Amino acid sequence: MTDATGPTYDIDSFYQGLVEHGLIIPSEIQGGYGRGAVFEDILERFNDLVSRTAKDDGAEPMMFPPIVPRTLIEKVGYMDNFPHLCGSISSFFGGEKDARALSECVHAGERWEDRLDPTEAMLTPAACYPVYPTFAGTLPAGGRLATLTGWVYRHEPSPEPTRLQAFRMREFIRVGTVDQVVAWRNAWLERGLSLLKSLQLPVASDVANDPFFGRAGKMMAASQRDQRLKFEILCPVISADNPTAICSFNWHQDHFSATFDIKTSDGEVASTACLGFGLERVTLALIKTHGFDPATWPAEVRALLWP
Amino acid sequence: MTDATGPTYDIDSFYQGLVEHGLIIPSEIQGGYGRGAVFEDILERFNDLVSRTAKDDGAEPMMFPPIVPRTLIEKVGYMDNFPHLCGSISSFFGGEKDARALSECVHAGERWEDRLDPTEAMLTPAACYPVYPTFAGTLPAGGRLATLTGWVYRHEPSPEPTRLQAFRMREFIRVGTVDQVVAWRNAWLERGLSLLKSLQLPVASDVANDPFFGRAGKMMAASQRDQRLKFEILCPVISADNPTAICSFNWHQDHFSATFDIKTSDGEVASTACLGFGLERVTLALIKTHGFDPATWPAEVRALLWP
Repeated sequence: MTDATGPTYDIDSFYQGLVEHGLIIPSEIQGGYGRGAVFEDILERFNDLVSRTAKDDGAEPMMFPPIVPRTLIEKVGYMDNFPHLCGSISSFFGGEKDARALSECVHAGERWEDRLDPTEAMLTPAACYPVYPTFAGTLPAGGRLATLTGWVYRHEPSPEPTRLQAFRMREFIRVGTVDQVVAWRNAWLERGLSLLKSLQLPVASDVANDPFFGRAGKMMAASQRDQRLKFEILCPVISADNPTAICSFNWHQDHFSATFDIKTSDGEVASTACLGFGLERVTLALIKTHGFDPATWPAEVRALLWP
Repeated sequence: MTDATGPTYDIDSFYQGLVEHGLIIPSEIQGGYGRGAVFEDILERFNDLVSRTAKDDGAEPMMFPPIVPRTLIEKVGYMDNFPHLCGSISSFFGGEKDARALSECVHAGERWEDRLDPTEAMLTPAACYPVYPTFAGTLPAGGRLATLTGWVYRHEPSPEPTRLQAFRMREFIRVGTVDQVVAWRNAWLERGLSLLKSLQLPVASDVANDPFFGRAGKMMAASQRDQRLKFEILCPVISADNPTAICSFNWHQDHFSATFDIKTSDGEVASTACLGFGLERVTLALIKTHGFDPATWPAEVRALLWP
């Protein structure tokens, strides 16, 4: 990590170990590797443990594809704040002649993508985004709670195995009054820490900020930290002194509710918050902490994941 | 369906029924809807049934993200054959000034996507594509067999609920000698029919072709049918006389093996085949056939899915 301030583990040897143990399957692109059977098993077992932990909360399960409407990305201001991370989808809309020219361009090794046009969709940059429009209208008195596992895209290619271009988040999304939402966020911050500590991960929580773009973004990041709107649970995976965020908590205040017209039962603009476990990152934290072979992990950890 | 030759069911009332029963969650874009809890449960249970059916085959489980290297799409000739279905990913690579101009363009409602540049990735157009490069080299004598569940993107927006822009395929991928691969494909064609019939779906198999682009594509489709390289298992969902493909079988001969240098143990160019269950389509076929509420489905079908 270029911004590591302390001891950095050997990224290459960790990556090679993951490959040699069949945990990940190399790809030609950075942050695009495949996952082997054991990696997937750990990831799914952890996701199941999260479900068991939250089973009495009554969250509504939802599932969305890895694409969202382009209009949604525009409405939430993503292109203002995170243009460098976006994934815009283009396709080919032409006829026979255009297709022949496109094909020739591809075979000539020229830049052919300018012959495409934008579609109505973009890649999902945060698993919770498609949920907010479904909350439009007046909420019941207790607000609402949803949960999902979704693929997220971020254009940040990196050789570092915890930084993926496409990864899965297990999210919970709460909407209601400010008091309801903040109390829920605070309770989950404790619960998340406790859950990850039960897996014997050396975790700690901290105030955090989103990776806003540019100079204006630096001010937004500072304001987000000042208001304590974002927290992360961190665990050393790549660097001891620069731990990796494996779970994050965002309180959006009325950002999404104002955009999508979500009202509390009293007719006020609602408040929203979400929390997400980065499933690949939790999996990598478990592997880094306990070893490449889950059969050798501590019995207490195995009992929680493979009950 | 514009090409239906016989009685077409009422697409709107089927779609509305899916929404009213909470099975799907409407989206602003066609073919981009969310899936509700019951829809997901059916889909996962069917996928589990496929796993149980194939459990003694020893397939290697793999998992890939919904993106693939752009170079892979180029190498397999996708832009020659299916340019109209592709999803190319662009992102923003500029600095402060470019970002301000981009943001202004978005807010002015102008076309802003030309300010982006292509990334190194595209959306996965077939769940099996990322598997072939991992087979590169010389195979063991029995060949290899892999399985995965993956998200697939096709740019074909449609109001018809079985035609999605992003959907999941449960695939098996076989590589070996021609004899090994064809025998495996033939056995699975019987097994797939038998599995779907056990769920009391009115299915039948037929020779088929891929949706190749344009006039040259018509010839490729005819050749593919003549050689019986593609089969589908079809079930009425939207139209009685124009049933929907819910499972497909492709024998690629040496297309992928020549591209990715996959050799049999005898040093010959290998042969590959794959089969895929369209998980959303099977789910919709079950709902269309047995009703919107799985609690009312035939006991034999429920016993297979919820053992």
